Amino acid sequence: MVKAVYDELGHPRPKRHFTIGINDDVSHTSLKVDPTFDTEPADVVRALFYGLGADGTVGANKNSIKIIGEDTPNYAQGYFVYDSKKSGSVTISHLRFGPRPIRSAYLISKANFVACHQFGFLEKYEMVKQAVPGATFLLNSPYGRDEVWDHLPAEVQQQILEKNLKLYVIDAFKVARDTGMGVRINTIMQTCFFAISGVLPRDEAIAHIKKSIEKTYSRKGAEVVQKNFAAVDHTLAHLYEISTAGKKITGKRRPPAVAESAPDFVKRVTALMLAGQGDLLPVSAFPVDGTWPTATSKWEKRSIALEIPVWEPSLCIQCNKCALICPHAAIRPKYFEPAKLAGAPKDFLTMDFKSPDVKGNKYALQVAPDDCTGCSLCVEICPAESKTEKGKKAILMRDAMPLKEKERQNWEFFLSIPEPDRTKVKLDVKGTQFLEPLFEFSGACTGCGETPYIKLLTQLYGDRAVIANATGCSSIFGGNLPTTPYTQNEAGRGPAWANSLFEDNAEFGFGMRLAIDKQAEHAKELLRTMGTAVGDALVQEILTADQSDEAGIDKQRGRVKLLKEKLAKVKGPEAAFLVNIADYLVRKSVWIVGGDGWAYDIGYGGLDHVIAMGRDVNILVLDTEVYSNTGGQASKATPMGAAAKFAVAGKSMPKKDLAMLAMSYGHPYVARVAMGAKDAQTVNAFKEADSYTGTSVIVAYAHCIAHGYEMSEALGQQEKAVESGYWPLFRYDPRRVAQGESPLKLDSPAPKIDLQKFVENETRFRQVEAANPEAFSRMLAQAQKDVREKYALYEQLARAMNPANLVPGGAKKPSA
Amino acid sequence: MVKAVYDELGHPRPKRHFTIGINDDVSHTSLKVDPTFDTEPADVVRALFYGLGADGTVGANKNSIKIIGEDTPNYAQGYFVYDSKKSGSVTISHLRFGPRPIRSAYLISKANFVACHQFGFLEKYEMVKQAVPGATFLLNSPYGRDEVWDHLPAEVQQQILEKNLKLYVIDAFKVARDTGMGVRINTIMQTCFFAISGVLPRDEAIAHIKKSIEKTYSRKGAEVVQKNFAAVDHTLAHLYEISTAGKKITGKRRPPAVAESAPDFVKRVTALMLAGQGDLLPVSAFPVDGTWPTATSKWEKRSIALEIPVWEPSLCIQCNKCALICPHAAIRPKYFEPAKLAGAPKDFLTMDFKSPDVKGNKYALQVAPDDCTGCSLCVEICPAESKTEKGKKAILMRDAMPLKEKERQNWEFFLSIPEPDRTKVKLDVKGTQFLEPLFEFSGACTGCGETPYIKLLTQLYGDRAVIANATGCSSIFGGNLPTTPYTQNEAGRGPAWANSLFEDNAEFGFGMRLAIDKQAEHAKELLRTMGTAVGDALVQEILTADQSDEAGIDKQRGRVKLLKEKLAKVKGPEAAFLVNIADYLVRKSVWIVGGDGWAYDIGYGGLDHVIAMGRDVNILVLDTEVYSNTGGQASKATPMGAAAKFAVAGKSMPKKDLAMLAMSYGHPYVARVAMGAKDAQTVNAFKEADSYTGTSVIVAYAHCIAHGYEMSEALGQQEKAVESGYWPLFRYDPRRVAQGESPLKLDSPAPKIDLQKFVENETRFRQVEAANPEAFSRMLAQAQKDVREKYALYEQLARAMNPANLVPGGAKKPSA
Repeated sequence: MVKAVYDELGHPRPKRHFTIGINDDVSHTSLKVDPTFDTEPADVVRALFYGLGADGTVGANKNSIKIIGEDTPNYAQGYFVYDSKKSGSVTISHLRFGPRPIRSAYLISKANFVACHQFGFLEKYEMVKQAVPGATFLLNSPYGRDEVWDHLPAEVQQQILEKNLKLYVIDAFKVARDTGMGVRINTIMQTCFFAISGVLPRDEAIAHIKKSIEKTYSRKGAEVVQKNFAAVDHTLAHLYEISTAGKKITGKRRPPAVAESAPDFVKRVTALMLAGQGDLLPVSAFPVDGTWPTATSKWEKRSIALEIPVWEPSLCIQCNKCALICPHAAIRPKYFEPAKLAGAPKDFLTMDFKSPDVKGNKYALQVAPDDCTGCSLCVEICPAESKTEKGKKAILMRDAMPLKEKERQNWEFFLSIPEPDRTKVKLDVKGTQFLEPLFEFSGACTGCGETPYIKLLTQLYGDRAVIANATGCSSIFGGNLPTTPYTQNEAGRGPAWANSLFEDNAEFGFGMRLAIDKQAEHAKELLRTMGTAVGDALVQEILTADQSDEAGIDKQRGRVKLLKEKLAKVKGPEAAFLVNIADYLVRKSVWIVGGDGWAYDIGYGGLDHVIAMGRDVNILVLDTEVYSNTGGQASKATPMGAAAKFAVAGKSMPKKDLAMLAMSYGHPYVARVAMGAKDAQTVNAFKEADSYTGTSVIVAYAHCIAHGYEMSEALGQQEKAVESGYWPLFRYDPRRVAQGESPLKLDSPAPKIDLQKFVENETRFRQVEAANPEAFSRMLAQAQKDVREKYALYEQLARAMNPANLVPGGAKKPSA
Repeated sequence: MVKAVYDELGHPRPKRHFTIGINDDVSHTSLKVDPTFDTEPADVVRALFYGLGADGTVGANKNSIKIIGEDTPNYAQGYFVYDSKKSGSVTISHLRFGPRPIRSAYLISKANFVACHQFGFLEKYEMVKQAVPGATFLLNSPYGRDEVWDHLPAEVQQQILEKNLKLYVIDAFKVARDTGMGVRINTIMQTCFFAISGVLPRDEAIAHIKKSIEKTYSRKGAEVVQKNFAAVDHTLAHLYEISTAGKKITGKRRPPAVAESAPDFVKRVTALMLAGQGDLLPVSAFPVDGTWPTATSKWEKRSIALEIPVWEPSLCIQCNKCALICPHAAIRPKYFEPAKLAGAPKDFLTMDFKSPDVKGNKYALQVAPDDCTGCSLCVEICPAESKTEKGKKAILMRDAMPLKEKERQNWEFFLSIPEPDRTKVKLDVKGTQFLEPLFEFSGACTGCGETPYIKLLTQLYGDRAVIANATGCSSIFGGNLPTTPYTQNEAGRGPAWANSLFEDNAEFGFGMRLAIDKQAEHAKELLRTMGTAVGDALVQEILTADQSDEAGIDKQRGRVKLLKEKLAKVKGPEAAFLVNIADYLVRKSVWIVGGDGWAYDIGYGGLDHVIAMGRDVNILVLDTEVYSNTGGQASKATPMGAAAKFAVAGKSMPKKDLAMLAMSYGHPYVARVAMGAKDAQTVNAFKEADSYTGTSVIVAYAHCIAHGYEMSEALGQQEKAVESGYWPLFRYDPRRVAQGESPLKLDSPAPKIDLQKFVENETRFRQVEAANPEAFSRMLAQAQKDVREKYALYEQLARAMNPANLVPGGAKKPSA
């Protein structure tokens, strides 16, 4: 549907090809097209609106279409273009209005009205380029009448002058603030559109908007209606035209879409896609085998946070919990020798590193100001509060604007400090956060509850992880082209990642395991024949290597490197083949990742099959208890009494106990975790899962915007989930049986608070209560009973599974 | 692939239409074709062979193709046509040989060689009809040179004379017996073919057969080879030609394919299909909505048993276990007033009915001689043994031939005796067998372990059952067109049955439940508005009826009948609509049926989903522990250490515990049963499952030929499965909680015998042991440990789930 957009960027870029769709410069099947060809009549209004995801632009435009299409003789059409980023992405609305039916089934490339709802977009996106001569350009600007021109990028000034555009300006955020609308600018910008576009007579248009406001808000009271009316009137008073007569090109040139230091591929391909011009890329620009480079999200620099965390070393206890919980890997700690501080920016903060093992080192905690999304979870989890100033913690959220430039420099410097030696880091909550995350800056929602688990996975095993990812949020933010959040360490190692279908992801990852095992087996077979050529000792060392920890993996990597060097001098096809597959002699960590829609529902048949097979795969279920990615439909993970899309009456059946089902097989490792409630248990579960050579299943509680509350409160909710028995924590480890212990170990205490305390904070439950208090009360009572009995059953199971009790007739004996 | 076959039967039948494929006389899209059109050159040998399923005919023909195709300059082709009956069906081999490549991609309709390997087929199938004038007809006949002509049906005699066929005869069974080949006639008939078909010079052909015998049997020793050589030589000595010169038509005309008393549809449609001439049926012959009539298998009369059971009333204790276990519903008990014996055949046996409730009645146990398959399970299960004559039981297997005519008459009379009043029958093992089975005479294997469960289901609930059947053995023998084993009682009520895919059968049945509930709900809504028209009392009675047992169902049927009569006099569309759906006011029993390949593997995702939904469906899993229908591939139900197709090394993972998985949901009723080990527990499980208004799951052990032993020994194996703890019996009924009891109740004692005692009798295990004794020994030890621990775990669970123990902290208290 999206046609090619013709533009120029600062970076080296492909020669222009005017083709329909993609320019196939490999097999040459594209048809040429005349880019000036145009059949749209002059009396059709063609309007483009650039808004921020979730800022109300799309909704307001749909409302405009309704007004014009229903209340006037005009015909109307709208296309809305946006990507799958969960927060902070651009939305482009393409609207057409005209006196005859509109049959233009394509986007607008020649607009006679262009609106920019966010001033910052001028630096990122071409928009006036798409305006026809004499068109109207509406701009939301924080700069006043006298300043605004000089703040426009030079490219924009040039287009405005060349095309003689009519430039209208409003400070919509100011109008919104002044009229009590907060940050909601959609009605204001809609009013501007009607006031200046000429699609309707101005007074008629304003009357329509007010009628629409009355219809929408009268339920909420006369005051709200009046506030909106005031915003409309205020808008008309603050909208003004800037005469371009005699204006010169005074602005700065746009910065390149990505930094000059970015790799060639990022500059050549990623940058164009980021700028919304991916259709310009010819077929030859893409990797021939479909493999897409990782480590690219760091070049995106979305800079969407209004507030970012500021560190206060005097209060910090160096627990690193902030880094653990950060959904975007945007706050990180590091320790290092003081000498490494040479050349640090003057504002770069450090403190002495507190550690029983490493003496005399410095510690720094650094935010990535352009990658932070401002969720504030780091502040929420921070346990270090000032004894003198209530509410003052070791990190606090502060207005981002004045901090960004400084923190950018600090971040660059922070990254330049060497990573610590992985083999010497203790793998607890604190230690794991010194490991480089190989998943960063994803497009996940602000405050996402899933990404911290994935980030932890990559910190622990990312340099040897192979990940099969089911469709769902994690596949969207995990492979949200053009950038990928999965990244690489200095040695170029990072997760290999691929997304498969909802219905076969477990099998997909299982296949990866089988393939890796087969390659490793073949490598070993070849290696055994190479004793003479490379030395029997090396062969034996490689074959019998202990790779159960970081140090073991590191040593094996060294041996394999040596092996490859020796093989390079050996003649014959076997040696050449072994070089190719020698890396399989280093243990890989296979992860099968997905949400509850996949694991509990659509992919469960396959998940069950893979669990039954018992091979060495790790299954991570990110349980948001709802189909988050598609808008919140109920899954079998949805709890009793919760509402979901198309199921507002609340679920009448209890949540499926996936962990219990997995455990009933006996042979897999199974853990149920909630990082926000007990992070140390989560870290232990990941370590045990990876070290277990059979199948491991981790069912991880993930808060989600679909639950209906501010994500900044998510950690408290996770705690309540555990304390109420709603989400009991446990680890089932079959290895314990050999020690004469029960494989099942409960990691959370018996329910301490009423389930009510958990559910009352979430809209998904409150919504059901509001609609039918009596039915909800019944469901809640049943759910309360269920969670207590389920906890007790887990306790009983932990006892029953003790090997001493597993003898026929054992049930009759009194328990220990 | 199958072309129309042109023929005539005794019954009324459609006019001949010579079309390619099916004659579409509804939308008239078929193309006409000249049936005499023929492009096959005269020098191509076209041979048809009619054999009995599994008698070796197909194998011998494949061997002939190999000999001719590989060892001579001739080209060869073979098509093999057979249906999906599990035992006793016909196989037709179509072989072509010629000097040039054969490009005839269709079956043979003009044969110059026809062989009939079973004399009885002459009465059932047209075959000489397909012979060209002067062709050769080879017949295996138990009748000698002087008798055979007169035993041919008149139609066959006529064809032979008209076409001047060369008639060759051999008593192959006699030759086989005389040469120590038992009943194996395949090599003998193959020798005859080569001897008389002229496809190869006789001596050359014989040499090739002997070479082939040597190759196949030399591993088994010189003696076996010599025995086969002798059979070949003996064949040549006993094969003779019958001159037809001067012969007259002296035979009896063929009996009709089905009895004259059969319904019109059976005579018009089923009979043609049974005779292998279904392609003659025009489109108009078929039901317009795809619904296929039930109650047709009784017209098939396959008559395949060599031995049938004979009843000895003097020993009989009237336990009815024989009837319960019979896979084909071919032995049945009845009790009745003595007056009903008027007109009984003289050999019809009865005895006094022993019953505490019903006095002065007679009891009869009757076999259906043409429907029995001779499996002998009835005799195996019979507990009534003579105290004086060891091995003499109340039923014994006897040679069928001399008994058939007599027992046919007895069976007809038995059927004419009225069925007992269902509402007065006690629903235990004995009582259920007085209920009419509504599943009879299926195409299941002789001795099948699945069908007794289905039969029991239909005895209990068949008159109100709606069955969704997964693909697998049960869908094949359940809907093996042209006949269906599901049947109807005198009132015309019987199961509604449909087969869906492996991957969606649980959902399929779930949809049936939803549809039935919706119809019932709508009927109730309409009914509530009809008080004035039909009487408030009747409305209330219907709406509040107790339908929990047979008597309740019966009364409700009476009310609904009355309602319909009253409604017939009420005007308006609501009354007419209610008449249409009033039957939904009587409770339906929805069953979702399938094998382990469906339930444990391919359909498990859906099965799990349906269980999670908690609606009132009954799920019956016929667990043969292997994909029986497709030839024995491993499923997740396959136990550790068992071999399967493509998996001869034995399964290394334990059997999936489907019952445990279902139970872990808490809310469903779950039972694990083995009819052959504890039939009373099975009957109780079926009763509890139906009466439970939520989801019920019955996992039923079903022995299978795939396990590799004689099915007559299956009941002993079922007992060993339970006694060894391999298959613990239990019932999990959530209703017990309300009584303060644990929902889980173990119905079999702690393991009494070693697992070895169970596995040693089955080839699936022995095969693995033979191939790798050491590995098998390891697996067996592990499996032995597993079954004991699993039993103990069930015991512990039964204790843990007692409501008194389900309080947090309860695990620490000593057990009761």
